[in-house]
Amino acid sequence: MGERVRICEVGPRDGLQMSTSIMPTDVKIEWIRALAGAGIHEIEVGSFVPPKLIPQMADTGEIVRASRAIPGLTVAALVPNLKGAQRAYEFGADLALIPVSVSEGHSCANTNKGSLEQVAEVRAIVEWVRAQERPMKVDAGCATAFGCSIEGAVPQDRVVMVAAALADAGVDNIVLADTVGYGNPAQVRSVVRAVQREVGETLDRLHLHDTMGLGIANALAGLDEGIRCFDSALAGLGGCPFAPGASGNIVTEDLVFMLESMGFDTGIDLDALIRAREILQRGLPDEHLLGNVVKAGIPRTYHRAAA
Amino acid sequence: MGERVRICEVGPRDGLQMSTSIMPTDVKIEWIRALAGAGIHEIEVGSFVPPKLIPQMADTGEIVRASRAIPGLTVAALVPNLKGAQRAYEFGADLALIPVSVSEGHSCANTNKGSLEQVAEVRAIVEWVRAQERPMKVDAGCATAFGCSIEGAVPQDRVVMVAAALADAGVDNIVLADTVGYGNPAQVRSVVRAVQREVGETLDRLHLHDTMGLGIANALAGLDEGIRCFDSALAGLGGCPFAPGASGNIVTEDLVFMLESMGFDTGIDLDALIRAREILQRGLPDEHLLGNVVKAGIPRTYHRAAA
Repeated sequence: MGERVRICEVGPRDGLQMSTSIMPTDVKIEWIRALAGAGIHEIEVGSFVPPKLIPQMADTGEIVRASRAIPGLTVAALVPNLKGAQRAYEFGADLALIPVSVSEGHSCANTNKGSLEQVAEVRAIVEWVRAQERPMKVDAGCATAFGCSIEGAVPQDRVVMVAAALADAGVDNIVLADTVGYGNPAQVRSVVRAVQREVGETLDRLHLHDTMGLGIANALAGLDEGIRCFDSALAGLGGCPFAPGASGNIVTEDLVFMLESMGFDTGIDLDALIRAREILQRGLPDEHLLGNVVKAGIPRTYHRAAA
Repeated sequence: MGERVRICEVGPRDGLQMSTSIMPTDVKIEWIRALAGAGIHEIEVGSFVPPKLIPQMADTGEIVRASRAIPGLTVAALVPNLKGAQRAYEFGADLALIPVSVSEGHSCANTNKGSLEQVAEVRAIVEWVRAQERPMKVDAGCATAFGCSIEGAVPQDRVVMVAAALADAGVDNIVLADTVGYGNPAQVRSVVRAVQREVGETLDRLHLHDTMGLGIANALAGLDEGIRCFDSALAGLGGCPFAPGASGNIVTEDLVFMLESMGFDTGIDLDALIRAREILQRGLPDEHLLGNVVKAGIPRTYHRAAA
């Protein structure tokens, strides 16, 4: 048996959020069921943000409720603030993810708050959640951890500082996010090491974008540093707000292909995963789906690590 | 100054060979000049194969002659046999590359010879070339070194055996080629290490395809093992004969972006490289050009390693 690597599918949140059309709720639920059926045990199913801002996420409450019925699935939702976290709790999410931009400029542009003000919001969320009856995990995402379209380079020391503040605020896990896809493998290795030195295993996973074509190589760099969980999106759904037409999240199918080929056990059935693309395409008929393994076909040399 | 990594552009050979239309000779020469002008010092400009088999390469003699006039450029040509090597010599190539399939099935299908019979042809070429007045390098490419569309998995021991035989035959350099793009980073590391143990620095470079989306990650794996030269093609030109529509060679622009971002000095001007795409597109108007950096735009965080 290969060592386990977890994949958190973020297509229904980070992917759909960037799409120009809105996927019908029933198709979303069918898609999430198919993803879970393929062996994905963590899915970011939506975002509790104002529907006026992101209408694609208006049905997140209903999606969370339906997803809870799927056995063995960790249902995650993005929340921008305490109010969002309360709604995630109310609808029964297993995990609330709060993004905190490491870049001060990006943080202010997106939340009207500086990075450390947003960490204070995270602390308030953790305290509120811990006071409730039912447990809900609280994870924080360090957005723009590898570069920012507003500020440019983001100093590694600042990533470490924000991660340390988030760990101190009591989050369960930290995600380092290459929000705009500027990162390179040397940088991923260096930043991951530095954050691990500061917060240890609280650094749980990487959220990588393929904007510059380095997404899978950056995942490999993280893997080399001991990271065993990655966000990705089926068909590479998503994009980059500053670069229309650019690639989005790393492609789940290609990532699974790499990991299983390398002997890591993802628990995911690649054929079933590829079949789930049909539902995605039906829900977003105009979307151009990405992914190399699908274009080329699974080669005869492929064997699942767990088999 | 960053450590030097060499890039050998194979678009004019491996890329054009797979295209459905034929690039006019004058555009080819203009394209090769632009690639050299962007700082690429090694270009595989064509292939001395029968024009009946690969009409795209019919003008290779003329292309080699014109490329020789470009200062500082190593002009490489693929040759399938001694006759091809003699033509490469006659037209003034600096380097002849002979492919030898590690997979016996692939070798027989492509050359009507087994792998070791083809190594014997390489030995004859080395002997003939060494007896000439002018020096010409003789490199050998271990094709299907990471998997084969005919035989499936290719045992690592067999790659080592063929590489050892090629080193013994006296070639200047060995290239390990993931001809069909089945390789994964763990395999690249393992095979590179094993071949290095056997032939040392005679293992010069990797030729990687992005069929499954792992091309750049596989380059990173090679880089980690000390490989400092990579084949790639502008706009990811090329393809995979067994998978119509699949991605071709790794994209030169994206590879340069990764290497320079990591602090390696390629000597290549990324802007000038991207401008060379216009000539390529003019020469092949129907070709769909790949490349993430071009789609997203070079980010403001990018600085050349050598600068």
